[in-house]
Order: sequence, then C-alpha cells, then structure tokens
Amino acid sequence: MSRFTDILMEIGTIGKNEDGSITRIGFSEDYKQAVALTKKYMEEAGFTTEIDTVYNLHGYLPGTDPNTKSIVIGSHLDTVIKGGIFDGCLGVCAGIEVANRLKEEGIKLRHPLELWGFNMEESSPLGGTFGSRCVAGMVDINAEGYKERLEKYGITPEDILAARRDVSEYACYLEYHIEQGDKLFNEGIDIGVVSGIVSIIRYDIIAHGISNHAGTTMMANRKDALVGMSKLIVKANALAKELDDTLVATIGKINVSPGQENVIPNEVVATLEVRHMEPSVIDEYIRLIKKHAAEIPDAEFTFQNTVSKYSTPCDSTLIETIKKVCEEAGISHVVMPSGAGHDANPMAHAGVPIGMIFVPSKDGLSHCGAEWTEMHHCDIGVDILYRTVLALDELMV
Amino acid sequence: MSRFTDILMEIGTIGKNEDGSITRIGFSEDYKQAVALTKKYMEEAGFTTEIDTVYNLHGYLPGTDPNTKSIVIGSHLDTVIKGGIFDGCLGVCAGIEVANRLKEEGIKLRHPLELWGFNMEESSPLGGTFGSRCVAGMVDINAEGYKERLEKYGITPEDILAARRDVSEYACYLEYHIEQGDKLFNEGIDIGVVSGIVSIIRYDIIAHGISNHAGTTMMANRKDALVGMSKLIVKANALAKELDDTLVATIGKINVSPGQENVIPNEVVATLEVRHMEPSVIDEYIRLIKKHAAEIPDAEFTFQNTVSKYSTPCDSTLIETIKKVCEEAGISHVVMPSGAGHDANPMAHAGVPIGMIFVPSKDGLSHCGAEWTEMHHCDIGVDILYRTVLALDELMV
Repeated sequence: MSRFTDILMEIGTIGKNEDGSITRIGFSEDYKQAVALTKKYMEEAGFTTEIDTVYNLHGYLPGTDPNTKSIVIGSHLDTVIKGGIFDGCLGVCAGIEVANRLKEEGIKLRHPLELWGFNMEESSPLGGTFGSRCVAGMVDINAEGYKERLEKYGITPEDILAARRDVSEYACYLEYHIEQGDKLFNEGIDIGVVSGIVSIIRYDIIAHGISNHAGTTMMANRKDALVGMSKLIVKANALAKELDDTLVATIGKINVSPGQENVIPNEVVATLEVRHMEPSVIDEYIRLIKKHAAEIPDAEFTFQNTVSKYSTPCDSTLIETIKKVCEEAGISHVVMPSGAGHDANPMAHAGVPIGMIFVPSKDGLSHCGAEWTEMHHCDIGVDILYRTVLALDELMV
Repeated sequence: MSRFTDILMEIGTIGKNEDGSITRIGFSEDYKQAVALTKKYMEEAGFTTEIDTVYNLHGYLPGTDPNTKSIVIGSHLDTVIKGGIFDGCLGVCAGIEVANRLKEEGIKLRHPLELWGFNMEESSPLGGTFGSRCVAGMVDINAEGYKERLEKYGITPEDILAARRDVSEYACYLEYHIEQGDKLFNEGIDIGVVSGIVSIIRYDIIAHGISNHAGTTMMANRKDALVGMSKLIVKANALAKELDDTLVATIGKINVSPGQENVIPNEVVATLEVRHMEPSVIDEYIRLIKKHAAEIPDAEFTFQNTVSKYSTPCDSTLIETIKKVCEEAGISHVVMPSGAGHDANPMAHAGVPIGMIFVPSKDGLSHCGAEWTEMHHCDIGVDILYRTVLALDELMV
C-alpha cells in the first residue's frame, strides 16, 4: 500500500454497505462525509480548498508564473447505489498524490494546479455529470420541472449559476479513472490512453398492445405488448452484435402496464441506450431497429429520443503527451475510446482540451461491489498522471 | 332497457372513472356503496339480507318445502382497477331479477333461494375469490403474513372464520357471468353453457445474469438477464400457440434489477400464468419451457411455482339442465370451458354442484372500460337463469 492507495481506501470506507459495496449518492450525508475527509487531505497536500454552491469540492495550488492558465485534474466523489471504491474517487485522490509528490520532490509548477472532486457524476434526477456541468455552465435551469428536482437536494437555480467557472482559464483538464470495461484487464495492458468518449444516445421505446383477460383471450387473438417488446429486445441485442464490434446497446429498464399476473399487457415502456464513437453507426443502428419494430405483429412501437450526447474526442496534444510519458516510463499502454461518460465530457464541450488515463478494471466490472483495480495498477496510473502534469507544465504556454 | 339492465347500469355508475371504466376494489368505499344499493334492490325483490363479517352481501328467500336445500345464485360486486360494469355485477343483479320474476309471476319455489354478492373476487393481496373462499371455508388464516394483510382491510382472522357457511346445505350454485373471451361474440352464439373452469398454474421465473456497465461492457461479454428473459418470453408465446389451441400462457408482470438505463440487468423476475382444462397439457408446457430456458445462454433460470388451481368441472346434471332450457327457449348455445376463475370455483371445491351461464363479451374484452355485453344478451342470459332455477326447483330433491 502506498500513501496514495491508503487515502483511496480510507475514503472508500465511507458509505460502505454490508455486502462490501459503496453507496455514496450525491448530496447524501455519506457523500458530504467523503468530501470533508478528501478536503482535509487536499489541504495537507497544499491546496487551498472550497466547497462550492452545488457541493463540488475544489482545490487550488498556485503556480510560479502568473501568466499561465491552470492545469486541472478532476473526477467525482459520488458513487452509484451499491457501487465500488474506485469509480470517481481514484481520480480525486490522484490529484492529491500529484500535489504530495510535488511537495516531496520540492517542485513548484509554473501553472496553477486545480483539483475538482465533483458531485453527482452518476445518473440522477438532475442528469449525469451534474457537478461538472454546473462548473462548465451546462445546466439548463429552465428545463421543465428542474427547479422542483433541485429543491429535493436543497439547492436553487441560483446555486447552479453561482457554481459556474470561467473554464477558458483552464489550460487543460486531466481525468484519471478506472476503465470500467475489460479490455486492459483481458489484454494485460497497464494503461489506456483515452482517444475520446463515445456518443450516448437513449430512447424510450413504447410498445402498444391491447389489454385483455389472460385466461379467456386465446393466443391467436392477442396483441401482447410485452411479447412485442421481448421480440424487439432480442433483435436489439443481436443487431448490436452484428453491426459493429464496439457498438453497445442496452435495455436496462422496463415498465409493464397494467402489470398484473392475469392481464395481457397493453403497454410496455423500455429504455434503449446505444453507445459508439461514431454517431453515424448509432444512427444506422436506430434506423434498423425502427425497421424491425415495424415488422413485429404483436405491438405498435413509438420511439422517443431522450438523450443525445455526442462523442467527445480527447485533445491530440494531450493524447501524444500521455503516450510519450508511458513510453519513457516503459509502461504498456493502448489508445482506446471510453465507453463510459465522464466529467471530462462537459469540460470538453465547454472548450477545454481534455486528456484521460485509464487503469484496468478486474474482470471489467464496475458499478458494483466487486469493482476492483490492483494496487500496483493504481500506483502506475498516478505515476503516469504525475509525469504527464510535469510534461504539460513544460509544454504548455 | 329492462328492469334488470336498469339496476345493472345504476350499480355500474358506482366507482366510475373519468375514462368510463369502473374501479370498485373490494372493501373500498365505492365497493361498500355498491353493496348498499344492491342490498336495497335485493330487499325490494323479497330477500332477507345481511352483510357478513368479510363484507359479502347475502340474501335469503324462503322456500315452501322445509326439507329442501338452497338453490344458490352468486357472483361478485368488486371490480379490477379500471374494469367494466358487467364482470361480477351482472350475476348478482340477475339473482335480484330472478326473485322479481318469481314475485311478478306469483311463483313460490319449493327450495329456498339464496343470493351472494361476493367481495373481492378479483386478484388482491388476500388472493382471488376471497369472499367466496371465506364462505366455503377455504382461506388459510395461518399463512405467513396473512393476518397483517387482513389488517390493511380492517378485518381479523376471526372475521374470516365467522363468514364460513355450511355449504353442504346448498343444493347447487349457479353463476351467470360474461364470457370475458371472444368465442360467443365471434361465433354469434347467445349462451355459453360452461363445462368447467380451467386449471390455473402460475410460476415466478427468475433470470440470473451479471450486472455491469452498459457503456464499457462489450456485447460479446455480457450475461444480460433481460435479454435472456426476453428470449424466454418469445418462446413461451410461440410454444403456447403450437402446443394446443385452448392453452393460454401469459407473462403479465416483470421486474428488472437494478433497473437503470445504463446498467446491464442482473436479475429479472417475471410471472408466467398458464391455463387449460387438462392439467397434463399444462405440465407438458412447463416441462418444455424449462427445457428451452436451460438452452438460453444469456441467463440462468429458476422456476418457482406460486399458484396451482386445478380445473373444476361443472356438474353434469346442471349442464344438461341449462342446455335443455336453452333448447326449449330456442336460444343458440354451446358447451365450453371457462378460461377465467370464478366464485363458482371455491363452491365446487367445497363439494357444491356448480353450473355457469355465459353471455357474449363484445370483442372478447373484459377487465377494462371497453368491457361490454349487449342489453338483449343480458336479458337472454337472465331469462335462461330464471328458467334454469324453475327447472332445478322441480328436478332437485
């Protein structure tokens, strides 16, 4: 165990469930406790800290050259329900370790170093990457019902506006994260240099059938919305496998009406989420799914697009810098897309050059108690991050 | 409109929803209001009435021969959520009409005539055909958690015991009901003479997969419980069509865990309900479904049998009597099984000879606001019931 992984594991005890998983929903007491502990370690590492109006944790370490923009490191301190220790928290602790290494080695950066521990990156009624979208000025406070949803978390539209930062003062944004897939783990590679974040498109698919008595309506006369939806789910799965190796499509949520054992379902609503680096591949997939849906006799289908997050490329200079750092350190690495969204996403959309470093997830698992990254991989990743910061401090204006 | 259908339509205004459907859940205020109104009409028709300890409505009309058992007519006054006017209430109103006809025609039966308006025949936490099972002594008050469930409806195990009747004093039980299927409607037949009530078998099927991140887990590496369950639902539907014309299989309820848009489902629980007159056909169906489930690669399946109601034949003397009455009245009729369970079911299990009369359901619809039976069919049915009661009064000891 290193200084870095000690802190990571200590924060990882906050919100621990009986089964060993971690639940630290944004704005929860456990989340706030994690923020308080992280804040203490940030201050010990030399950062001036602040908790902003939407409960993001921010740290600032001045540079020696007043004419430089900040090098920014960030990730999140919240988790999903029954998530793991690493998703998010790893990258925040890594920023603390970078500052500790700088202090230890007596190095003062030219650029200011900023560190974010974002709130509520995970899915919530406020939308994913909530904290970083507040900082990037990307939250629509006028969306229908949004004010009411904010109230449940004890915040106001004014708090959202107050959390916005001038990100044009950011030279770059670096995020160190677990892969959450199984590529690095399966291929035995230490570091993923992220090329970009995939597009995420979501639809609500509604199957309309005819409700009727499950005992008296013969099979031949049924319009069973759940049978129709099941046929579409089977097809959606097969088509994703056929169309492209890196395309993923998931139906994660389904709601059946009226939802009684003895009534034929008349309406089924399911969510379809599709991810790929190329929006054109997703478009083709959706076109084919709609075509197949129209051929299913059991139900009529309607498609409602609910989320369209287009792919975010990482900055080519940052990609090249991270690659070079890996090569010089003799660490195996591969350039790969991120299948998951990250706080880097809103930063990129706000015009900040982003770079991301991945380490292997055991068995590709995340968002569960079995989420795990070996300690030596955690240490390799933070070393690559540290070296990248030093390289960028030289390279960037 | 006749005297009979006027009463039916008046009771059918109680619990009316904005969309025209009826919601009159057992024990609800609307249910109790319907009981009060029905009670008034029963008394006007000559019955001595009583509301029993589980809120069944009972009527008694003495016969002329003290050595005879009762001819009993019954059905229920509750509805499903957003149900129709006819399901249940038709048969109770028909009992009132029989008494009114007797009075009008100056006929006194040898046998006492009893009329039940049962409570909570429809599915509920207390189990289907609740009211009639109380009367037949078929409620297990010692079942786990049952006492607590009773409390929610304001009744006690003692109330259940007090509601039991000595049904060996019943000469026969007659129930007049809408078909709830589309056989009579499609074939243009006026009356269904019910041969028996089908077996109803229910399973909870659980698909076990592996939860993981929907963005980072490639399609080839997934164990998606919902994809597995969807394949099984498609197969369950196809197999029911193949195996036997009158076999019906329904998946009406499904629950997906963790149920998030961006997480691959690790567990799906679905209900499977299968109905047929021959338990052996159902057994074969379940055997084949389990075999198919074992061949689905996406998930592991477990099957838990939750309900096993075996088929209930109608009494052959009653079937023959109803057929003969139809023939003599020149009314088209067919002998057919009931795909739905009815209050007749517990009566038969308690040893009472049962007979049932069906009238056509428009488009085979029931358990919905569009449930409809033409007024002239309502009147034909009640006339057949009346003539059947007269015939049985002569025939039976």
